[in-house]
Amino acid sequence: MTGKTLSAGQRSDTRVSRNIKLTLEYEGTNYHGWQTQARSGQATIQETLEKAFATLAHGPVKVHGSSRTDAGVHALAYVCNVVTDSPIPPVAWAPAMNHILPDDIRVLSSEEAAPEFHARFSAVGKIYSYRILNRRAPSALHRHAAWHVNLRLNMRAMRRAAEHLIGRHDFSAFRAAGCSASSPVRTLKTINIRKSADMIEIRLEADSFLQYMVRNITGTLVEVGLGRFQPEDVKRMLLSCDRRTAGRTAPAHGLYLVRVLYAE
Amino acid sequence: MTGKTLSAGQRSDTRVSRNIKLTLEYEGTNYHGWQTQARSGQATIQETLEKAFATLAHGPVKVHGSSRTDAGVHALAYVCNVVTDSPIPPVAWAPAMNHILPDDIRVLSSEEAAPEFHARFSAVGKIYSYRILNRRAPSALHRHAAWHVNLRLNMRAMRRAAEHLIGRHDFSAFRAAGCSASSPVRTLKTINIRKSADMIEIRLEADSFLQYMVRNITGTLVEVGLGRFQPEDVKRMLLSCDRRTAGRTAPAHGLYLVRVLYAE
Repeated sequence: MTGKTLSAGQRSDTRVSRNIKLTLEYEGTNYHGWQTQARSGQATIQETLEKAFATLAHGPVKVHGSSRTDAGVHALAYVCNVVTDSPIPPVAWAPAMNHILPDDIRVLSSEEAAPEFHARFSAVGKIYSYRILNRRAPSALHRHAAWHVNLRLNMRAMRRAAEHLIGRHDFSAFRAAGCSASSPVRTLKTINIRKSADMIEIRLEADSFLQYMVRNITGTLVEVGLGRFQPEDVKRMLLSCDRRTAGRTAPAHGLYLVRVLYAE
Repeated sequence: MTGKTLSAGQRSDTRVSRNIKLTLEYEGTNYHGWQTQARSGQATIQETLEKAFATLAHGPVKVHGSSRTDAGVHALAYVCNVVTDSPIPPVAWAPAMNHILPDDIRVLSSEEAAPEFHARFSAVGKIYSYRILNRRAPSALHRHAAWHVNLRLNMRAMRRAAEHLIGRHDFSAFRAAGCSASSPVRTLKTINIRKSADMIEIRLEADSFLQYMVRNITGTLVEVGLGRFQPEDVKRMLLSCDRRTAGRTAPAHGLYLVRVLYAE
């Protein structure tokens, strides 16, 4: 009987609220992106995580993401955080979540973060990678993991074009029509383009990215690689601040969120 | 009316029988291995190909494979051949098949081969690769593509153990109980073990392989890497010709048929 006389309010007073930071790897193929949408037939990563959390925490939990990855986009180390008064120890969330989650989402680590830590607002930078399979024949094994471009790409032209994008610029020409960011100015710190056998990897680091920015840059660089644009055209695209001057949007399934950077 | 007076027998007389060699890439995850079985709920690669061929050739076609890969095993360049009197030109089979096949099987190329060419009996060697993801955290992206071993492997010990396997040996200790090969003697030409970040790749070349041979060798090398066996123990296993002396069978999903070698 003593247990029952304790009210819900009194119980929560004795509980400690903790901010848990989780790092995830996921394959985005079967999800409608990160963010939960009002109406969508397909599950999102966020709602799949919130369901797993709710099961373990015995109540609804809000998961704060670091990035709104599009449908089909993958992540090697996505960061999110949740505030919970669950007694589950911080490091135990990773194995507990992995027990419940579908196997295309894995929690790599879980740890306690400072109370003011927020996966998105505390981030000071992000690294994305885009993979292109550049060969004649299509691929079964990379079909969800890289964009297949079957004409030979000129790597030197792509690298020269990429140099024009580095720095602090108005990236309106490489921004989705529906992008909700208040400013189109971003600082692109680095773009590295590497090739290993048939696989090209474009790796970009910026303070943050506009919607479709990596996919629009990649699509444009590929058109440079095909000779449809000259490397110098990219300078003109940036200055135009007009999306119509730049190249096509690369498909989602070649894109990976590699890392989210925090000051710490 | 003239077309209709030509009988089926006369028509086939005017057709040329061609031997078509196809090279395939496939993800084995959703298949019950290469070989068609009498009773199996899940499709095999062979029957999936034969169905696609039958559609294009307007009649049943027998596909001759180079290797009986197990359920879950992948291929980067599997070779098979078919003899057909279809008028479809040899190089056109690849794009035509890709139009019909599910996207986890891709035909990389199709060409006409000599009439005596047989994907399996003409092969003089094979190269397999086994991938191990060696890190603490499980992976979403590699879940069907590499064996996750979460304890640190001693690469030096694995390489020393592998050296004992190179050469012409009776590989009975590394052979499946149900293996139907008439002789257990094989010549293992090379084993290379490389590590790049968290991914270990074991690449083996032999004249041919016994059933489960790569998976039993890999399982044993991993147990050496974990310190459960000493590198020198592998010599003793080989000499015993007894499966029970060697290590466990590595799971199928880390295994890739890389190439089939022909004298030409």
